[in-house]
Amino acid sequence: MKITGTFLDEITFDIPSANWGPAQWAADFDAMRAIGIDTVILIRSGLRDRMTFDSRVLPKYRAMRPAYIDLVDLFLTQAQRCGMTFYFGTYDSYHYWHSDPELEVRINMELADEVMARYGHREAFGGWYITQEACAFDERLMVIYEKLALHLKALKNVPTLISPLMLKEVTAAAAHPHPEMLAPDALAGVGGFNDLAGYERNWDAAFQRFSQYIDAVAFQDGYVAMTELPEYLEIDRRLARKHGIECWSNVESFERGMPLNFLPIDWRNLRYKIEAAATAGCDKLITFEFSHFMSPNSIWPSAHNLYNRYREWQGV
Amino acid sequence: MKITGTFLDEITFDIPSANWGPAQWAADFDAMRAIGIDTVILIRSGLRDRMTFDSRVLPKYRAMRPAYIDLVDLFLTQAQRCGMTFYFGTYDSYHYWHSDPELEVRINMELADEVMARYGHREAFGGWYITQEACAFDERLMVIYEKLALHLKALKNVPTLISPLMLKEVTAAAAHPHPEMLAPDALAGVGGFNDLAGYERNWDAAFQRFSQYIDAVAFQDGYVAMTELPEYLEIDRRLARKHGIECWSNVESFERGMPLNFLPIDWRNLRYKIEAAATAGCDKLITFEFSHFMSPNSIWPSAHNLYNRYREWQGV
Amino acid sequence: MKITGTFLDEITFDIPSANWGPAQWAADFDAMRAIGIDTVILIRSGLRDRMTFDSRVLPKYRAMRPAYIDLVDLFLTQAQRCGMTFYFGTYDSYHYWHSDPELEVRINMELADEVMARYGHREAFGGWYITQEACAFDERLMVIYEKLALHLKALKNVPTLISPLMLKEVTAAAAHPHPEMLAPDALAGVGGFNDLAGYERNWDAAFQRFSQYIDAVAFQDGYVAMTELPEYLEIDRRLARKHGIECWSNVESFERGMPLNFLPIDWRNLRYKIEAAATAGCDKLITFEFSHFMSPNSIWPSAHNLYNRYREWQGV
Repeated sequence: MKITGTFLDEITFDIPSANWGPAQWAADFDAMRAIGIDTVILIRSGLRDRMTFDSRVLPKYRAMRPAYIDLVDLFLTQAQRCGMTFYFGTYDSYHYWHSDPELEVRINMELADEVMARYGHREAFGGWYITQEACAFDERLMVIYEKLALHLKALKNVPTLISPLMLKEVTAAAAHPHPEMLAPDALAGVGGFNDLAGYERNWDAAFQRFSQYIDAVAFQDGYVAMTELPEYLEIDRRLARKHGIECWSNVESFERGMPLNFLPIDWRNLRYKIEAAATAGCDKLITFEFSHFMSPNSIWPSAHNLYNRYREWQGV
Repeated sequence: MKITGTFLDEITFDIPSANWGPAQWAADFDAMRAIGIDTVILIRSGLRDRMTFDSRVLPKYRAMRPAYIDLVDLFLTQAQRCGMTFYFGTYDSYHYWHSDPELEVRINMELADEVMARYGHREAFGGWYITQEACAFDERLMVIYEKLALHLKALKNVPTLISPLMLKEVTAAAAHPHPEMLAPDALAGVGGFNDLAGYERNWDAAFQRFSQYIDAVAFQDGYVAMTELPEYLEIDRRLARKHGIECWSNVESFERGMPLNFLPIDWRNLRYKIEAAATAGCDKLITFEFSHFMSPNSIWPSAHNLYNRYREWQGV
Repeated sequence: MKITGTFLDEITFDIPSANWGPAQWAADFDAMRAIGIDTVILIRSGLRDRMTFDSRVLPKYRAMRPAYIDLVDLFLTQAQRCGMTFYFGTYDSYHYWHSDPELEVRINMELADEVMARYGHREAFGGWYITQEACAFDERLMVIYEKLALHLKALKNVPTLISPLMLKEVTAAAAHPHPEMLAPDALAGVGGFNDLAGYERNWDAAFQRFSQYIDAVAFQDGYVAMTELPEYLEIDRRLARKHGIECWSNVESFERGMPLNFLPIDWRNLRYKIEAAATAGCDKLITFEFSHFMSPNSIWPSAHNLYNRYREWQGV
């Protein structure tokens, strides 16, 4: 089973910029295509004061910095050239989506209208990615998913994707990897859990809630212990089948929990997680993300070696 | 507006050594010259037990380790070859400059005498950099600036430079980025502030205090939010004009606040800060620092790309 | 004095994988040989759920992940090709060795039997490394050393090596760099100390305890201040002589205590520590570790430069 999708992370939250220009991006799309990547997912079109293209909408809501380059156009052009499907990722205010989810939705609806008018006709434009990451059932987030997904699908009826955190334990005190962004009462709607059965109950409720407008779910596979991963993937797969959603796996290609965090993953760990997802019967494998962590063009040399190990193994 | 100066940081406080020898340094000076760098600033001649040349003075005051290589000579030679002005940075005991500022001054005065005798005649020797970084008005630091700058100028009457922190908020509890180095009573003289008006009042007092012997001030531009940076730069510029000091900007070329900290900055962030400094009317742009963060020879590959982005943009 | 030994760290505890395949490892053994490395030490054969070869023993004791590649065979083959001696490192459960040292011993004895049958005849197999790191006299650890070393030597009578932490201060509250792995009562047997004399008394007792079955001790030299290192090395040397053990020094080639931790060390720091160990009269210098931190093939470019600095200095 191959990794056939990757996120594109050029408004990064927590990883360093590679400072690539258009020529470097074109070379990287070639490298993606060479191993069978057919799907690229813009992880977010904007974050706080940064944006991937010079939106006229976002500056209405807060001070924004110039985009300097139209990355959405660049990625659509490259995706089309390489025969890939492009998913557009929503804007993350990093502020409103828990404290004022209605506003997060309004901003994103208006942005989506702009995006549709500007890029909706492009050949590679084939999906919507809702960037707001869930770690458990959270009614505020469900409201965002519901209103936003329905609006996005009405604009262009292509698949919607989310990529939640696969967490072993979620409590009110630690319900989000970035709790600093949550308003004091933001966790009221979170249904906590602390074991495998709780994980299944919680996500069963969430899938039930969003299955009418979310088409695929790709859990981030880097939060649970490797030896427990197969059980979690099996639950994900079961729930997805039950609710008629596609079960993708976000096979993270970076290492977590190290003194130097977010460097390319050990090849053995990546292989283990791919095989676990294949065994569980996942429908598609994507990764966060190719260009930093498993590209021959990466700023991290160990990614070059990871690319070679992956190609040897896959025979591609 | 171009970046025309860079720090040289080979007794590093917080960034890794590149382990360059003389040939690699020569190549890097070529790369600096190619983009118009005309000023190089040795950020410090020594720190704690390390020194950039085999000083006879410093070992009188504490156990020091050998220099192994005379970096001051190396940098002066390269600066002369490339037609650049070299600023000599003072010694940082990392101990006395708050707890016993008089001793910090005495050590540095004696060191400056040695440096003057040894390197003062060198053609590229054209400035003094006082390495002790201010984050706000601090009478102890003002004493160091005053006594030291007057002594330095008496030895060789060339410009003096400091590079304070541009902080949005300074309180007694957090008046220094490295509070562990401060003696318990070290903060008594710090005038705190927590807004833009307080920033201006505080620095107005500081500029007033040191304007007779400090010739240029280059605030570190990486501590305040990007969208607020223009306002801070405008204040810096206004105060510098008022007190007859040159207003440089230290356009930091590394990223702050990331899980992997102190890696080359996103090109868009660098461009934004350069444009903000140009708009504010700064007299000169320098950076901390070229060799790690924007050099084609850097140990960080993303710096190579940053160099290319910068050259494309500048047309150099 | 040259560094003639290096650890091999491919089941890493805290540093990123290079993702090398057999060809890259072969090239790196060539680079080791070129500077005079004659000893390679597998730092551990397994850690928690990971292992360097597909052991039949370890999965009896806990869920293990596949090895995917037989690194023990690979390293033995390369060591033989390059005329080096290979030390086999024990398994680290990261759990039992303080909470249930008898179990840690039993697992490792059974693993050693398997290793002996499988690799004991190989020409390069010339030493045992006990991976469990001591930071002070600790009776539980002494039990592991004693039982395990006697068993290992009975299997194959080759030298045994340990690499303790050279700590200035050890208290019950901070007796281990990874205290989270210790059971609540695990520190009962630790004899604490907080000065040079206490260091000597404590390690004198430890050497006395294990001198009958441990042949060489290589203290990690990166924990004490550089200017104090000579005194510590002198004590190590004196104790080793007194108890008839070889005194090696583990000249760490990575930097500690930086915002980006565990990157290649500043060349001047490495040289200082090598000279200090030579002055103290150490019998042999090894490093943690060549392939990440001082190899021309390293994923860290500053390691390439460190290799060149080292070769220039050594004239090799």
